[in-house]
Amino acid sequence: MTQAPPRPRSPFEAPFGAIPLFRRVALIGIGLIGSSMARAIRAQGLATEIVCAARSAETRAAALGLGLVESSYEDPAEAASGADLVVLCSPVGTYGAIAQAIGKVLEPGAIVSDVGSVKGAVVRDVGPHIPAGVHFVPAHPIAGTEESGPASGFAELFQNRWCILTPPEGADPGAVERLSALWLAMGARVDVMDAEHHDLVLAITSHVPHLIAYNIVGTASDLEQVTQSEVVKYSAGGFRDFTRIAASDPTMWRDIFLNNRDAVLEMLGRFSEDLTALQRAIRWGDGDTLFNLFTRTRAIRRGIVEAGQETPAPDFGRRKA
Amino acid sequence: MTQAPPRPRSPFEAPFGAIPLFRRVALIGIGLIGSSMARAIRAQGLATEIVCAARSAETRAAALGLGLVESSYEDPAEAASGADLVVLCSPVGTYGAIAQAIGKVLEPGAIVSDVGSVKGAVVRDVGPHIPAGVHFVPAHPIAGTEESGPASGFAELFQNRWCILTPPEGADPGAVERLSALWLAMGARVDVMDAEHHDLVLAITSHVPHLIAYNIVGTASDLEQVTQSEVVKYSAGGFRDFTRIAASDPTMWRDIFLNNRDAVLEMLGRFSEDLTALQRAIRWGDGDTLFNLFTRTRAIRRGIVEAGQETPAPDFGRRKA
Repeated sequence: MTQAPPRPRSPFEAPFGAIPLFRRVALIGIGLIGSSMARAIRAQGLATEIVCAARSAETRAAALGLGLVESSYEDPAEAASGADLVVLCSPVGTYGAIAQAIGKVLEPGAIVSDVGSVKGAVVRDVGPHIPAGVHFVPAHPIAGTEESGPASGFAELFQNRWCILTPPEGADPGAVERLSALWLAMGARVDVMDAEHHDLVLAITSHVPHLIAYNIVGTASDLEQVTQSEVVKYSAGGFRDFTRIAASDPTMWRDIFLNNRDAVLEMLGRFSEDLTALQRAIRWGDGDTLFNLFTRTRAIRRGIVEAGQETPAPDFGRRKA
Repeated sequence: MTQAPPRPRSPFEAPFGAIPLFRRVALIGIGLIGSSMARAIRAQGLATEIVCAARSAETRAAALGLGLVESSYEDPAEAASGADLVVLCSPVGTYGAIAQAIGKVLEPGAIVSDVGSVKGAVVRDVGPHIPAGVHFVPAHPIAGTEESGPASGFAELFQNRWCILTPPEGADPGAVERLSALWLAMGARVDVMDAEHHDLVLAITSHVPHLIAYNIVGTASDLEQVTQSEVVKYSAGGFRDFTRIAASDPTMWRDIFLNNRDAVLEMLGRFSEDLTALQRAIRWGDGDTLFNLFTRTRAIRRGIVEAGQETPAPDFGRRKA
């Protein structure tokens, strides 16, 4: 364990009047999401103590240096020890081993949660290691940027974003309520659904979009007729938007695809069928099919802007940049 | 013809000291690009007179009301009459008929250009109608937002963006030079290449990205297992970025796909092959293939940011929104 040096007045103290929801929150992994949680929990005075575990010494030092946590540990079990809330914030491929490691130190009444982008696999990998009396409530905040690491987080990341909880059947309602209160207090809106439905919804709203963004950037960089420098120079025609998504963390995204295989393959199959139909329309000069789709898609955009999930600024406000 | 009411001091006067490059610029079509050109030409004092033609009375009234042009016409030939620069700024599917209509009024020495996103088809459709002594220099500014119409333009749209000129073989170097000077003065950077290469480059940097964005938004809205309201609510996971592109003008984009068929089909074929390989990697749990691609794509993003073609702000600066 590494401890932050003592300070005259601890920034970890809750703001005056705030009642902490948790005594000790252990964040296992402290990248974009974990560090944003630390900042939001601190800002709202939602925990008495925040600690983290991270594999790399560099990350642990950064988390302390940025004042995100009071203590940082290499061993997840040490971080989880004595915690009444443990949140897995590492790539989902690491969850099984972490759950196994922390299972023996979890205290009755504690809540174990996570922030992973897939939920079925989390139930499969983590569930068996949760001891009786400990509450397991998986969660997924739908928020992020293309940046990674503890320095990239910010307290407002979850403002007005949805966090989906997928409590297994028979989960303790009080534990679901407490976790829900935490997310609401961090500015998020909370929904509850089953893990399987979550994985289908996210396959189409997040996983397949990332896959096709990664894919087109790969296709573009492999061309022999068009140079990479041309792709870069003329990217303002649409391509650059895909590169932002395709700059997301490789480990995290590899794990997502490996752990939401069935839903991703299902949605990808539909995407490819539809794309083949468009390809055929282009080949045969069927302008009506193209025009009808291109008109229909505008309505979805309007819905997203009206739902407060997107800025209405044209070009993402690049105009003012 | 409709004329703007007289004003005490005309905003159409060139700034003090500016030497207009053109006497009368006729913009045929005055949507996002045409109206941005009008604003930039005015701001920089690049023409003595700016006029436009537009099919709809509403657009003509808006162009006058916004102070974009001195006169607006329904008939492109009336707008082009007496102009030393005519720029086609309507969807590329309209170019053939417009070129036929204006061919007879073009004066020797005049330059005809355009802003279309495809170039081979423009040479094919417009070229035959250009009389001897008139210079035909197709152009394509790689800039835009998802907005359309005369109110959506702004003078800074072309700042630091590339404009590609595709002069046909034997084009007059002086005319290419003058058009190039206009784009440079509007803040753009200018490249020259042949029409065929332009169409290949844009197929991968713009046309296929738009097609797959339209396509995934269509796929998402057709699902029976996931509701449209869920797609909207949880769009912050990546999907919303695609909806911005898929909100672009339907007529303009239909015409682009119909007029750059071969290059789009070629690039789409490569995209689909690559996507099938990723699909196979997911099915077989081949994490290395995924990880390697996801790492490689980050470099392209860095190149685009370094080339000044994108904001480095995470999440397009939505954090501050």
